[in-house]
Amino acid sequence: MPAKTNAKRVVILGSGFAGVYAYLGLHDRFHARERDIEVVLVSEFDYFLFLTLLQDVATGDLLPANITYPVRTLPSCCLDRFIEGNITKINLDTGEITIEERERLLPNGQSGETKKTELRYDYLISALGSETNFFDIPGANEFTYPLKNLEDAKRIKNRVIDSFEEADELTDENEIRNTLRFIIVGGGPTGVELAGELADYVNAELTRAYPFLKGKAEIILLEGGNRLVPQMDAWFDKKVCEILSDKLGVHVRYDAKVSDVTQMGVRIGEESILSRTVIWAAGVKARKVDFVSREPLAFEKMSERVKVNAHLSLPTHENIFIVGDQAWIVDKETGMPYPMRAQFATREGDLAAENVYNHLYGQPSTEFEWKDLGFIISLGKRGALAHVMGMRISGYPAWWLHRIAYLSKIIGIRTKMRTALEWTLNAFTPRDVTRL
Amino acid sequence: MPAKTNAKRVVILGSGFAGVYAYLGLHDRFHARERDIEVVLVSEFDYFLFLTLLQDVATGDLLPANITYPVRTLPSCCLDRFIEGNITKINLDTGEITIEERERLLPNGQSGETKKTELRYDYLISALGSETNFFDIPGANEFTYPLKNLEDAKRIKNRVIDSFEEADELTDENEIRNTLRFIIVGGGPTGVELAGELADYVNAELTRAYPFLKGKAEIILLEGGNRLVPQMDAWFDKKVCEILSDKLGVHVRYDAKVSDVTQMGVRIGEESILSRTVIWAAGVKARKVDFVSREPLAFEKMSERVKVNAHLSLPTHENIFIVGDQAWIVDKETGMPYPMRAQFATREGDLAAENVYNHLYGQPSTEFEWKDLGFIISLGKRGALAHVMGMRISGYPAWWLHRIAYLSKIIGIRTKMRTALEWTLNAFTPRDVTRL
Repeated sequence: MPAKTNAKRVVILGSGFAGVYAYLGLHDRFHARERDIEVVLVSEFDYFLFLTLLQDVATGDLLPANITYPVRTLPSCCLDRFIEGNITKINLDTGEITIEERERLLPNGQSGETKKTELRYDYLISALGSETNFFDIPGANEFTYPLKNLEDAKRIKNRVIDSFEEADELTDENEIRNTLRFIIVGGGPTGVELAGELADYVNAELTRAYPFLKGKAEIILLEGGNRLVPQMDAWFDKKVCEILSDKLGVHVRYDAKVSDVTQMGVRIGEESILSRTVIWAAGVKARKVDFVSREPLAFEKMSERVKVNAHLSLPTHENIFIVGDQAWIVDKETGMPYPMRAQFATREGDLAAENVYNHLYGQPSTEFEWKDLGFIISLGKRGALAHVMGMRISGYPAWWLHRIAYLSKIIGIRTKMRTALEWTLNAFTPRDVTRL
Repeated sequence: MPAKTNAKRVVILGSGFAGVYAYLGLHDRFHARERDIEVVLVSEFDYFLFLTLLQDVATGDLLPANITYPVRTLPSCCLDRFIEGNITKINLDTGEITIEERERLLPNGQSGETKKTELRYDYLISALGSETNFFDIPGANEFTYPLKNLEDAKRIKNRVIDSFEEADELTDENEIRNTLRFIIVGGGPTGVELAGELADYVNAELTRAYPFLKGKAEIILLEGGNRLVPQMDAWFDKKVCEILSDKLGVHVRYDAKVSDVTQMGVRIGEESILSRTVIWAAGVKARKVDFVSREPLAFEKMSERVKVNAHLSLPTHENIFIVGDQAWIVDKETGMPYPMRAQFATREGDLAAENVYNHLYGQPSTEFEWKDLGFIISLGKRGALAHVMGMRISGYPAWWLHRIAYLSKIIGIRTKMRTALEWTLNAFTPRDVTRL
């Protein structure tokens, strides 16, 4: 494709909520002036991923196509180039990023090759998101299943199905129970939503498919602190625990700090719990990337997020914006950082686009400010909890709210309709039990 | 699961049309007498695959979930065991088959292992289907993309998208055209349907995603004989050629016998055509499997199908049934073999189930007999041809007939509705452009 001359190159890293909304924000503002900028999107994946629905894929509630949207069918008018690859280095001194491009299928069925590419930028919007945080707990990285991308979700689903297949061939009662004991580490939103969906899946579809294993599976949710969904108040904790324990049969354990994971299961101090499937949902931290800079960046210690100013740019480089889970932005009013959540990431992405526009045309930058719209979690079939506009909602109304809110946020009419269809069908027919 | 005592074990090999309908046939007849038999289904895949829609997946028209149905959600009442694995040997002398079981995800994220299993049978229904026939043409196996299973379809889709990505970075006009030249070898139903769908995909979605490459892609269909869709009459050939050439811009070449395939493209005698993506749809033959038997089986030479009698069993072993693409069954009326097509496979599978029942309860076996219901092919958006009940139909009516006939044959309400949704959406929104 012919290069644009005199255009400023804006490079967006990542195709998650923040990255895609940054692109849509540029598209909104520059569509009529598209000769002024050249937009390049670089991402590990060629689709936008609706990350907060991953647990639905892991439990057959949705299919991959329900939570992804192809980058290549975003409005392409303002997208000059899309590069699929891993970002390995960001050099702030030279204004270049290094990309390890995805292995391509070579002509006529030969195996692939990777190549390294250097890409210069005038403006950079880095939205690389977060990765699983194993907190240096021995064995956690090697022996657990994280849930941070589509491959992770597929592996968990396949592993759950495989566990039932394995157990179906066993005769020893203890071995069967060990094979069907699923441990979820972490009682945050991901952990509790996964526990709820997994309980539904195990109790319904998998019990129907393997009738002899009825009642032999067990789901244990381990929370290190004394509250589930700790970012919310005690009402949430109480309600979530009630639904999981009483309605869905999940064993919820508080103050259960995992000290060690092995092939055999987990250890909590002196206690061992045998399990062949340990799912790690204990936390995330900003995606690691190699920044090269004379003036060092400031990172927040716990979450390893990059500290940016209220305009979402680096204090030392006003042409570099960091947004989404990768960024540490302090809410001036409360003095607290904005949370790593989708609704914040989308607004941050959009504001970065606005500030690129402001900078390019010499206008003053806008500061980031966002009031939480609300918080919803879904716990299996028809169970949900919400905190919206000061109201606490549970049961059917919350479940509907969850479905409607999520459908409205899914990008693309096609993906919306697919997801609506799957959710509707889930009410009448069994969920999907194919390995992915 | 506890073993049944005194039950006769019926082993079904394969989960395609013939295998799944054999199971459904057993379920129909034995449901009330399920203690009399133990049914084991062995298949390479844990889903039924609607094989004749593979080209739709390869071109983004449908998604994998639209053409698959999980084996684990077939009515499980009569299915005592499902084993996912490759059948490597059938020993008729000992009455045992050898299965190389699928690699399982080991506990806690460790890589898998395979194991060999021997399985005894009382009755065997072998429905292993067919595989790509490369006709020993040099390079065909190494350098072309076949289209016989879901992985093949994904690879073709990914390769087509990759070709556009590669071409988008090139500047040399010749190199661009070579990269975007797609060759399809074989003008049978698979080849022409794929050519039609690929032309639509390339002309619409991919041109929108890569506007600078507009008009640079070329699709060439090579037919070795002098007629497209040779199983039908000259009207089909003429119509198919018209639609592909005039409406869709596919270059159709007759009498183009590929003599050689290399990394650079194909050779037809002295002529070379450069192409980096050669798709092989030239033919199929029965799946190869190692039969061990004192009394040797009879194979048809060309297609390597196993010759069975009118009851679909081996002349030497009345407890062994071969059905679907794997079987050579002669139509008594015409003296010709029944074709390797889905509608025949489903009836053969069902009849094998009936004859297991007949044999077990000492009733006379039924002979296979089936009149062709009709023949439909679909050629891209709204183009189709049909020959049904003596009538030739083209254009919209044939397209609708194709959609309705296929939807009626897809197994499972859920898969039906998903497919109906995708086809409906295809009329209004772009098809899927994600690598699979």
